[in-house]
Amino acid sequence: MSTSRKPAESAAANAARRGGSTFSPALLLDLYELTMADAYRREGMADDPATFSLFARSLPPTWGFLVAAGLDDCLSWLEQLSFSADDLAAIRRLSGFSEAFLDWLGGLRFQGRVRAVAEGTIVFPNEPILEVDGPLGVIQLAETYLLNQVTLQTGLATEAARCLHAAQGRPVVDFALRRAPGVDAGMKLARCSSLVGLAGTSNVAGAGMYELPASGTMAHSFVQAHADELTAFRRFAEAFADRTLLLVDTYDTQRGVEHAIQVAEEMRQQGVAIHGIRIDSGDLGAMSRMARQRLDAAGFPDMIIFVSGGLDEHRIHHLVAEESAPIDGFGVGTTLGAAGGVPTLETVYKLVDHHGRPVRKTSAGKSTWPGAKQVYRREDWSSDILCLAEEPAPAEAPHPLMEEVMRGGSRTQAGRRPLLAAHRHFEDQWQQLPPLWKQLKSPPAYPVRPSSQLERLTQAVDRSLAAAAI
Amino acid sequence: MSTSRKPAESAAANAARRGGSTFSPALLLDLYELTMADAYRREGMADDPATFSLFARSLPPTWGFLVAAGLDDCLSWLEQLSFSADDLAAIRRLSGFSEAFLDWLGGLRFQGRVRAVAEGTIVFPNEPILEVDGPLGVIQLAETYLLNQVTLQTGLATEAARCLHAAQGRPVVDFALRRAPGVDAGMKLARCSSLVGLAGTSNVAGAGMYELPASGTMAHSFVQAHADELTAFRRFAEAFADRTLLLVDTYDTQRGVEHAIQVAEEMRQQGVAIHGIRIDSGDLGAMSRMARQRLDAAGFPDMIIFVSGGLDEHRIHHLVAEESAPIDGFGVGTTLGAAGGVPTLETVYKLVDHHGRPVRKTSAGKSTWPGAKQVYRREDWSSDILCLAEEPAPAEAPHPLMEEVMRGGSRTQAGRRPLLAAHRHFEDQWQQLPPLWKQLKSPPAYPVRPSSQLERLTQAVDRSLAAAAI
Repeated sequence: MSTSRKPAESAAANAARRGGSTFSPALLLDLYELTMADAYRREGMADDPATFSLFARSLPPTWGFLVAAGLDDCLSWLEQLSFSADDLAAIRRLSGFSEAFLDWLGGLRFQGRVRAVAEGTIVFPNEPILEVDGPLGVIQLAETYLLNQVTLQTGLATEAARCLHAAQGRPVVDFALRRAPGVDAGMKLARCSSLVGLAGTSNVAGAGMYELPASGTMAHSFVQAHADELTAFRRFAEAFADRTLLLVDTYDTQRGVEHAIQVAEEMRQQGVAIHGIRIDSGDLGAMSRMARQRLDAAGFPDMIIFVSGGLDEHRIHHLVAEESAPIDGFGVGTTLGAAGGVPTLETVYKLVDHHGRPVRKTSAGKSTWPGAKQVYRREDWSSDILCLAEEPAPAEAPHPLMEEVMRGGSRTQAGRRPLLAAHRHFEDQWQQLPPLWKQLKSPPAYPVRPSSQLERLTQAVDRSLAAAAI
Repeated sequence: MSTSRKPAESAAANAARRGGSTFSPALLLDLYELTMADAYRREGMADDPATFSLFARSLPPTWGFLVAAGLDDCLSWLEQLSFSADDLAAIRRLSGFSEAFLDWLGGLRFQGRVRAVAEGTIVFPNEPILEVDGPLGVIQLAETYLLNQVTLQTGLATEAARCLHAAQGRPVVDFALRRAPGVDAGMKLARCSSLVGLAGTSNVAGAGMYELPASGTMAHSFVQAHADELTAFRRFAEAFADRTLLLVDTYDTQRGVEHAIQVAEEMRQQGVAIHGIRIDSGDLGAMSRMARQRLDAAGFPDMIIFVSGGLDEHRIHHLVAEESAPIDGFGVGTTLGAAGGVPTLETVYKLVDHHGRPVRKTSAGKSTWPGAKQVYRREDWSSDILCLAEEPAPAEAPHPLMEEVMRGGSRTQAGRRPLLAAHRHFEDQWQQLPPLWKQLKSPPAYPVRPSSQLERLTQAVDRSLAAAAI
């Protein structure tokens, strides 16, 4: 299992590792983006006008829709795209690029155009989430970061929307920071939770950055750190009064509920109504019914029952729709942090136009539609029409989904929408999306049809490709 | 789906969002860590000596071992733990904490101890990856970040080791940045790839930061940007000579191989031997056999065949062990970035000792062993013994796995090992790990046995808990 490694880490790399990043975001790319850019530069093609299209090829089998997200970070990356002297030194060390290429890289900025659907828009496979128009050698470089962020955030937003849908109006709170795959995923989950309208997040940094309510009270360790459960509950209620949510399952859930009731009675005598209880393990349906019965019988019908522990949209749906469990809110961890099906959300960033020549890939199972595009949706959501960007709007579906969000390397008004506007847009989209595609288990494929112009173009491209491949 | 949201995003939050983070890493925690710390402070318990233990409860069903990773980032977080004025302002805004608590937080630093297994150590469920000793109110705060990083990096390192094992000595390259769930996951994957000894990474920033070879040549878009495939290959080979790896599956793989041979012949006349070809789609076994046959017949036995596209450890194993496919290297994306089973890697950070009183959780299916621990491994890896930290080493397994990596809030020598040392330690561990637990499909559970002292202590704790729960 040995490999060709340098004999020791340099002091510089060690310093970078200890102190956090010393590289620019521009270096967040795959080496082949640089290799190709260099080849284009040598061939005099780096400035050729081109268009790349970013879209999902398919959905995980249980997903019926996607919530587009991540655009804001993509635009920030493009705005800031430039290579520092340190970046260029790193590139020089890593591979045999010429000084001429490094000079070219050093002066590079993105001054192109981006067309995209607004964040929060519901989209389907093969519909562009964004398209980038600009010099071939420059926009090739954006592939890695744009895919990383759109895939991550679209997956997170979609999974959050599915959990919220399963909860049928009950609050859902993001508990996932500890289980999210890294800090960026944890933070972007808070962002996407805000986008789709989760009730809050446990993530303090995320709550601060994305203006989401922060949520959380106690862990099992708090109960364990006291001589007994009753003492732990008492001390916590004294400290937090009506914000108190008592975690009742550290030892025995039934006795935990009795202890919560005892403390609630003591606090009531002081004029304080404690908020409720949380159950984090066991049969959440049965335990919530037991707890509701006991709380009601003891005269605490207003104390809420919040549950957490291994929840996903399917378990939430079962608890709410099948069991009618008396649950007032859900804290969701792992499945939100891992965005359910993200590993299978197959997004791509494909060259679709080069110098006015539409292109497509025809590999087995991976073929793509050629040309810069626009998506039109029928008002009744019966189908979408995938058109060429230059086509007039179809009479039956006059509303384009993609808009210009960046021009000449700067954001347009549409590229500057705050997160709250994206949230409102999502809520509007969600109300329109027919229930058929909101299904959590086996939704049908939403019909996305190519326009006849796009079909004709594709056939023409295939004829010319057949010649090119020979 | 509406929720209680503030009417508009503040300019400050907008600025934070646009410009990147303005918070300290200290804010990467769940709100309940703060709530509990405040309750402990009010009760005069914040400075009580305590120990938390971080370990995995179980493994995904196809995993037989874990490669411990993430310690270095955990120690950095603990070293830097402090709340800035901006952090305190954010906490004040988010919730009703008292000024007395904010003052306490403002002066807080970590001056405790960490004992941990070295990064690269092979560990099993219920064995501590790290334990933190320090004041209860302070070390509670570390839960979220430590879980986030150890779960992420241990999952990434383990999946990388599994792919490398499946490849049986052939190079494996990390192609996952675009599919990794966020930037942090992509960067930490490069780190973990270096830790276990992958041959390289496509991630330029990761290669630079962790001194891993950078790898990559061309995408399908490069072929598409040229009038035909042959021209694309020719231009690339002219630019990159013996570093050229031609991607042959943009249109038709068989014809792509013929074009590669034609360009290899042209370059040979100029005295240049091009490196090989890459196949990214289709039946990789059949296509590699076809390509090998054609390359050999054309007099290019030294041109390598590199494959990528939807690979994981199981497909690599099948290609190598079942098909004996003539493949010289593997580029792996999605499965490395998503760390295979990370969503099911159930790590926890549990209070095990408070003021010299060992504690444990007894919830259904979530019980834990009490007390600060040490792990001893028999030299023949026939089993490990989970002991109390204070126990003498068992005669039959004299080697402790955990060592002191931080003392008084500062790293010890063992806490300062460079990544290369961790890599060497992993290689040493890997050579020792018996093949039984390297199995990729259904490895048995490795025997981890509690010492008789630990068993007796657990029974004693249960007796006292039974009393406490009443």
